[in-house]
Amino acid sequence: MDYISRHIGPTRDETQEMLEAIGYASLDALIDAAIPQGLRMDGVLKLPKPLTEYEAQARLQELAKKNTVLKAFYGQGFFSTLTPPVIRRGVVEDAGWYTAYTPYQPEISQGRLEALLNFQTVVQDLTGLDIANASLLDEASAAAEAVGLMSRAVKKGRRVLLDSRLHPQVINVAAERGRVFDLEVEVTDLSQPVVAEDLVGAIVAYPGTEGDIVDPSPVIDAVHERGGLVCVDADILALTLLEAPGEFGADIAIGTTQRLGVPLFYGGPHAAFMAVTDKLRRQMPGRLVGVSKDAEGYPAYRLALQTREQHIRREKATSNICTAQALLAVTASMYAVYHGPAGLTEIAEAIHGYATRFATSIEKAGMRVRHAQFFDTVVVEDAGQEAVDKLAKAGYLVRKLDDEAVAVAFGEDCDDDDLRALLEGFGAGEISEGERRIPAELQRKTEFMTHEVFNSISSETQMMRYIRKLGDKDLALDRTMIPLGSCTMKLNPTAGVETITWPEFANVHPFTPDEYTAGWRELIEELAGWLTEITGYDAVSMQPNSGATGEYAGLMAIRQYHLSRGDDQRDICIIPASAHGTNAASASLANLRVVVVATAEDGSIDMADLDEKIAKHADNIAAIMITYPSTHGVYEDTVRDVADKIHAVGGQVYIDGANMNALTGVARPGDFGGDVSHLNLHKTFTIPHGGGGPGVGPIGVGEHLIPFLPSDANTDYVAEGSDAAHGVPVAGTYYGSAGVTQIPWAYIAMSGAEGLKAATSNAVLAANYVAHELNDAFPVLYTGENGLVAHECILDLNDITARTGVTAADVAKRLVDYGFHAPTLAFPVAGTLMVEPTESEDKAELDRFIEAMCSIREEIRQIENGEIEYEKSVIHNAPYTAHSVTRTEWPYDFSREQAAYPVDTLVHQKYFPPVRRIDEAYGDRNLQCACPPPEAFDIAVDELEPVEEIDVTTTEENRK
Amino acid sequence: MDYISRHIGPTRDETQEMLEAIGYASLDALIDAAIPQGLRMDGVLKLPKPLTEYEAQARLQELAKKNTVLKAFYGQGFFSTLTPPVIRRGVVEDAGWYTAYTPYQPEISQGRLEALLNFQTVVQDLTGLDIANASLLDEASAAAEAVGLMSRAVKKGRRVLLDSRLHPQVINVAAERGRVFDLEVEVTDLSQPVVAEDLVGAIVAYPGTEGDIVDPSPVIDAVHERGGLVCVDADILALTLLEAPGEFGADIAIGTTQRLGVPLFYGGPHAAFMAVTDKLRRQMPGRLVGVSKDAEGYPAYRLALQTREQHIRREKATSNICTAQALLAVTASMYAVYHGPAGLTEIAEAIHGYATRFATSIEKAGMRVRHAQFFDTVVVEDAGQEAVDKLAKAGYLVRKLDDEAVAVAFGEDCDDDDLRALLEGFGAGEISEGERRIPAELQRKTEFMTHEVFNSISSETQMMRYIRKLGDKDLALDRTMIPLGSCTMKLNPTAGVETITWPEFANVHPFTPDEYTAGWRELIEELAGWLTEITGYDAVSMQPNSGATGEYAGLMAIRQYHLSRGDDQRDICIIPASAHGTNAASASLANLRVVVVATAEDGSIDMADLDEKIAKHADNIAAIMITYPSTHGVYEDTVRDVADKIHAVGGQVYIDGANMNALTGVARPGDFGGDVSHLNLHKTFTIPHGGGGPGVGPIGVGEHLIPFLPSDANTDYVAEGSDAAHGVPVAGTYYGSAGVTQIPWAYIAMSGAEGLKAATSNAVLAANYVAHELNDAFPVLYTGENGLVAHECILDLNDITARTGVTAADVAKRLVDYGFHAPTLAFPVAGTLMVEPTESEDKAELDRFIEAMCSIREEIRQIENGEIEYEKSVIHNAPYTAHSVTRTEWPYDFSREQAAYPVDTLVHQKYFPPVRRIDEAYGDRNLQCACPPPEAFDIAVDELEPVEEIDVTTTEENRK
Repeated sequence: MDYISRHIGPTRDETQEMLEAIGYASLDALIDAAIPQGLRMDGVLKLPKPLTEYEAQARLQELAKKNTVLKAFYGQGFFSTLTPPVIRRGVVEDAGWYTAYTPYQPEISQGRLEALLNFQTVVQDLTGLDIANASLLDEASAAAEAVGLMSRAVKKGRRVLLDSRLHPQVINVAAERGRVFDLEVEVTDLSQPVVAEDLVGAIVAYPGTEGDIVDPSPVIDAVHERGGLVCVDADILALTLLEAPGEFGADIAIGTTQRLGVPLFYGGPHAAFMAVTDKLRRQMPGRLVGVSKDAEGYPAYRLALQTREQHIRREKATSNICTAQALLAVTASMYAVYHGPAGLTEIAEAIHGYATRFATSIEKAGMRVRHAQFFDTVVVEDAGQEAVDKLAKAGYLVRKLDDEAVAVAFGEDCDDDDLRALLEGFGAGEISEGERRIPAELQRKTEFMTHEVFNSISSETQMMRYIRKLGDKDLALDRTMIPLGSCTMKLNPTAGVETITWPEFANVHPFTPDEYTAGWRELIEELAGWLTEITGYDAVSMQPNSGATGEYAGLMAIRQYHLSRGDDQRDICIIPASAHGTNAASASLANLRVVVVATAEDGSIDMADLDEKIAKHADNIAAIMITYPSTHGVYEDTVRDVADKIHAVGGQVYIDGANMNALTGVARPGDFGGDVSHLNLHKTFTIPHGGGGPGVGPIGVGEHLIPFLPSDANTDYVAEGSDAAHGVPVAGTYYGSAGVTQIPWAYIAMSGAEGLKAATSNAVLAANYVAHELNDAFPVLYTGENGLVAHECILDLNDITARTGVTAADVAKRLVDYGFHAPTLAFPVAGTLMVEPTESEDKAELDRFIEAMCSIREEIRQIENGEIEYEKSVIHNAPYTAHSVTRTEWPYDFSREQAAYPVDTLVHQKYFPPVRRIDEAYGDRNLQCACPPPEAFDIAVDELEPVEEIDVTTTEENRK
Repeated sequence: MDYISRHIGPTRDETQEMLEAIGYASLDALIDAAIPQGLRMDGVLKLPKPLTEYEAQARLQELAKKNTVLKAFYGQGFFSTLTPPVIRRGVVEDAGWYTAYTPYQPEISQGRLEALLNFQTVVQDLTGLDIANASLLDEASAAAEAVGLMSRAVKKGRRVLLDSRLHPQVINVAAERGRVFDLEVEVTDLSQPVVAEDLVGAIVAYPGTEGDIVDPSPVIDAVHERGGLVCVDADILALTLLEAPGEFGADIAIGTTQRLGVPLFYGGPHAAFMAVTDKLRRQMPGRLVGVSKDAEGYPAYRLALQTREQHIRREKATSNICTAQALLAVTASMYAVYHGPAGLTEIAEAIHGYATRFATSIEKAGMRVRHAQFFDTVVVEDAGQEAVDKLAKAGYLVRKLDDEAVAVAFGEDCDDDDLRALLEGFGAGEISEGERRIPAELQRKTEFMTHEVFNSISSETQMMRYIRKLGDKDLALDRTMIPLGSCTMKLNPTAGVETITWPEFANVHPFTPDEYTAGWRELIEELAGWLTEITGYDAVSMQPNSGATGEYAGLMAIRQYHLSRGDDQRDICIIPASAHGTNAASASLANLRVVVVATAEDGSIDMADLDEKIAKHADNIAAIMITYPSTHGVYEDTVRDVADKIHAVGGQVYIDGANMNALTGVARPGDFGGDVSHLNLHKTFTIPHGGGGPGVGPIGVGEHLIPFLPSDANTDYVAEGSDAAHGVPVAGTYYGSAGVTQIPWAYIAMSGAEGLKAATSNAVLAANYVAHELNDAFPVLYTGENGLVAHECILDLNDITARTGVTAADVAKRLVDYGFHAPTLAFPVAGTLMVEPTESEDKAELDRFIEAMCSIREEIRQIENGEIEYEKSVIHNAPYTAHSVTRTEWPYDFSREQAAYPVDTLVHQKYFPPVRRIDEAYGDRNLQCACPPPEAFDIAVDELEPVEEIDVTTTEENRK
């Protein structure tokens, strides 16, 4: 059977029924009515004939076999590691984990929130710092974030020091971020005394890229004396043996957790980390999980300090990060849980043991080793291409440092055979035992990961059950639709997802020479070509590893373009008021000033205001950033006009591709005025959300911007001294999150041009069907031509709230009791819910959602009619745990059935949330971002707090 | 980390705590005290040094790569098929599905019972017969079962006709079963008129092994006229196009469902099927799922007509089948659900289309095709080894029929490239379109699979959710211990389980020439060698595809051995009263008379009675069949004596290896008197139970029995005319369920000798710990030396039942509310529960179980104390659904909390069964074994039956 028939939820008959309901004869007629004719693309996309699932997998198998997996002893931030099979199967390959959304709705996300809290605890403990976030995108961009953090926190400095001992890709990405912020970036050997003044801070390598371990204390003291902050870029596994950055005074620590059980993935996705001292916590970028309590006083997790983030703080945010690397952070955290502190230390010791035996054997063979003290990486002097080639032939990848030296970096999978083969590669003979090479004064003395969760799960059975226990707490696509208006939560085809753990893909080191990675490159370039065709641009870069990074990369391309033309003064980015916060935050990261253009009554851009802003800022306009269809879920017909106006004054047009699920196969941003767009491959192109990442955000650009696409931070990019306009790297590896690109590849390969168009058409149909069926209950706020919405619709609750007190948040929480993930709350308009059903939901599921919403409307009507007070209503007290509806004491006026089984179908399939409504504000007032003590959960029933009204901050939600 | 530390639940500290609790200083001391010294093995097992999980997978990868996967166009019962990725990931690779136990406890098995009912419905509909079972072991043994069924049902006949057009392996296995039953077996071409008389019945091929389709009506009429029954061996997929066997009068239909999405697996495991007319339903072998109702009147599924089965009916059972092929039947059923009747028909038409185009192209090229009418298999005349070799070189496997012809059998994965390559192999050129080759008069006219479930799930999203919905209803090892005394439900290591779907293993056709299967054979032979060492025998056959088949194969080896010595009169098998029913049923299948030897007061064999039986039957004794440690969970010290006594009179000793988890690495049946044993690789050796199969039951034998090990039904075995004593095939392929042997291979490879011994020791410790902690609440019935049990213990409830009315079944059902799968009920002693915790459960989980049992004991005490009547007690009304504890009306004297949350830990993790207690008897009185209409579930709450006492048959449970 063709894939697209499996992908699209409704059958042909159901499609027809839905069309009839909204009064259209065919999908084509609907699309013709919905999308302004002038924007439609000519003809059909030029894509290959669609493959079946089996053909696609066969082709991917061919591509996989074109890669030669060299066992990686290369290091430079990417290490061989062993993913425990129970974690691979239970997390990475489990739809319950990978199809989940970002945990904005904490009541149905307690499982992954707990796993992410474990992740934070691991990072905090190992770095010795006060607070860690729930992951960043990669090590290099984490360094860039650290530069940003330091420059925000230390306003008087103008110079940042980057240790020349950092990995090259880290230096290049971080340096460029510094330069964008107008900082002077000095790349210097920080194992030597610091002489520079006027510092915002420094990033120190620990160990260095060559493996050398140097005490960072002197540089920390020196930088602190000069008023700067210090970030330590640390190897997370080495920290089990080395003194923690926090202990010798670091303010920030960053690094990657890849080597905690996450495959090499040809460079990503991997979860980077950042930890900071308490005083910097409100400056920290990225998601943060914290402990709060629910309406009954039980400990409960939720995202903390969200007011730092772009979806609330917009251009004033700590970063533009939105999607993080949740699935990979969960994987790393499970690895830490499974091994525990003793196990991690044992692994680190084993790795160090191999490194020392290797070094000693090399020395005994009469060769020299460059650094006397190291953790896992040994540099052999007077070795070069010959050794590298010989080892490649034997199946090993090592790193040629320069013409005089080769580095060998040991990972968890090394065994004695490998050691022998490596020595052989350098012409060394016997294995000799070696002395410990870790500086005695830097030996770790403090405990870490002392919490029960890291010390109670040792058997595979326990691990399997812990993973299932957490997974079961969460609602993901494998149990219900996730009708978000802010994210396209459609089917993640198993045929594509299955292939990411194939060893010929997953075990390739990102810096493997091209001759061994033909399969990977062919796959990614083919995908990039298809995306170029789909967007109507001239080239696509796959580097950005999230949507927000795509925005940054796209704006940087625009910025560099203007600079290359001497247009240094173009530093304004116009953004509509309705834009999501990430746009503004990205513009801010690109050092552009944000000028907001107003929204007209009908939700479209206020053209008069736009004209005014253009007139006022003409020569300073770098770009306009717009989303199409707009965040109001409407195909506006002014987009071409807007683009023309901006172009007329020399600006560039950035079209945010977040809503490509309403355009793919039907219209192309490159055709209707865009100069650059990013795509969210984790929305429209079926990469699963992973509970909050990975995301993949490639950018497409017009021909004039091609020179400014992201360059390769590792090879062809030279940061230092370069002042010509050039492409700026945004991730540590050229292809960013290469490791999941099979998924969009498979989606497009299996859909073909007609399939993609059918998906779009059905998505538009589903949104209009839901809008039509719910309009009486909850009025649809905006519509476009012919009263139609695009692929999503906004339901307005403001009037209801005014009359009854019932908020959109109440409805969102109440939907949990009906077994649904809530729609997007309060974005882009306060007091609304935005619903995007996607093409993958069948009519029965849509009807189930409509039934739930109408049933909730009736519950609201009871308040309107005065039958029950708002505070006492079933909706205001939602959601209900199984335990709460089972207690003998029932404190409510409504019945238990109304609470838990408001519609009959629930009798056959019922999801109970593990907690009641969570008090968001309490958690921020009482910030706790590491695992709570086990006793916290030992609340006897009679100690429970009386059920009472709690403070639920209805934060504006994110759409990336 | 070494695997065995992950495999064993308790940490070293916990092991020590448990040892202290029962008063032993070390595991060695415990084992010394528990196992009679005379039985212990000398030294340690000679096994390779243990591998880590990663090393084991690397070695399996090497072995996998030694196989060359030829695309299979071979047929002969095994066809290429496409497993939908969503089903592979959701079922075959999901621990919730594969770690489940056989659904004896229906309340926690509704998900897989529904899937199996779907399977039955598919089979019933496609065969046009009244009732189908929930799978048999393979097509060949299904034919053997059909022979048995016919000979039981038609007592006056003495001859069975086997169609020479059946697959050779089917003929050979079925013929031998007929001969064992003293039937005259005639292998004859049943496309010709029937002349034989005195028939019990016939098995007709539909289509034939060469693909030819012949109307079976004449032979059916002819056999019926002669008073016999007719079984049609049908291709399940062909039946979407061909008239159903039931429509032209067949009494029985059998076949395999492999091609419904189940990989080739080098021969197995695959689910065979059997359907019969209503009048034969009580004669049908195998598990049968039926619809009943729960205590509230909701439809609920459970195993039906269990009184036909060996665990109740023993030697009078319809077969010895115990483990079936549940996981594979579920997979096939999901494939049917996903494709629906239209999809299956489309697949069949596509296959037929390729076959006709192939045949026509061959004919157009001037060659001859042997049969004019066919479904999927085309025989090319005047072709031979040359074509076969040429195609093998091109990557295709076809079947050389004889020196003059080659058969090409088409499967679901064929495409035009394949067709071209195949034609090329025969020197034919262009592809020509062909006419339909299905006889018009046999064209199917009736509908099938009209039930909603086959017509409502078409998208991948729906399929994913349906699989999850069903899976979530069931309790499996991924959520709780399954403390069965009858089955070792230990960890199924992911490192082994993961490898079964690797394409280099899974896609190999069983009749691929040896030169392409070096990896498979090396793996299986290595495993067989290790099992030989572990059991202390001289050879092991891997052919038996279940424990029961192992018993049958072992007894057949003994029987053939006696026959070879002219000891034709040896037809008695002595079996202790405490033996599980399968032993007796297997003996019966081997045409041995069962003589029961009594059990002494202490649970051991009554030696006086044994002496008496031996004296009485000496010359007729073929064998004794004993289990060690006995089914009483005790290491008896008489086993050597018993063996000696039997040997002294010329009998053979069969030691049932069901309890090898109490022996492995510590004692070997081959050392203490056994001549033959079967092993349950799905118990001790970690193949998951799959919710009731696959099982793998290899047999080990002493040197004198080697000639009588199962022969290869396909190649070296010649049934017809052979009257010499010889090995008897018991499955259609030489290695039986080859496809899952990686799992025990990995388990042994990763454990090594010391690891296996440690596992055994810890299993014994866990059982003694539980026995010790529970003895006050529920007295342990039998103990051996030093008051110790072996790896399981029997808790006696008879006294409690007498005093309070509370039965063991009540406790079993009540445990569901505590989140546990029940122990084995009423086996081997009525009124008891048998508990086998296994080494994989950590102390916390054991303590949680102990807490639950003690809490239940307190609930019983309330009845003892007169606080509540039995009928009104929380225990008698258990279990409780979420819906039942949420209703406003609460009809009980105990509280809702006591019903649902009797212990505090449940607040954090609670499993609710989807149904209340199921009325077993109602289902048998109102037999319904196909999907009920959807309306059956539309019970409004106010229509529910009042909660009342229901009839729960506490059937003796099975242990295979």
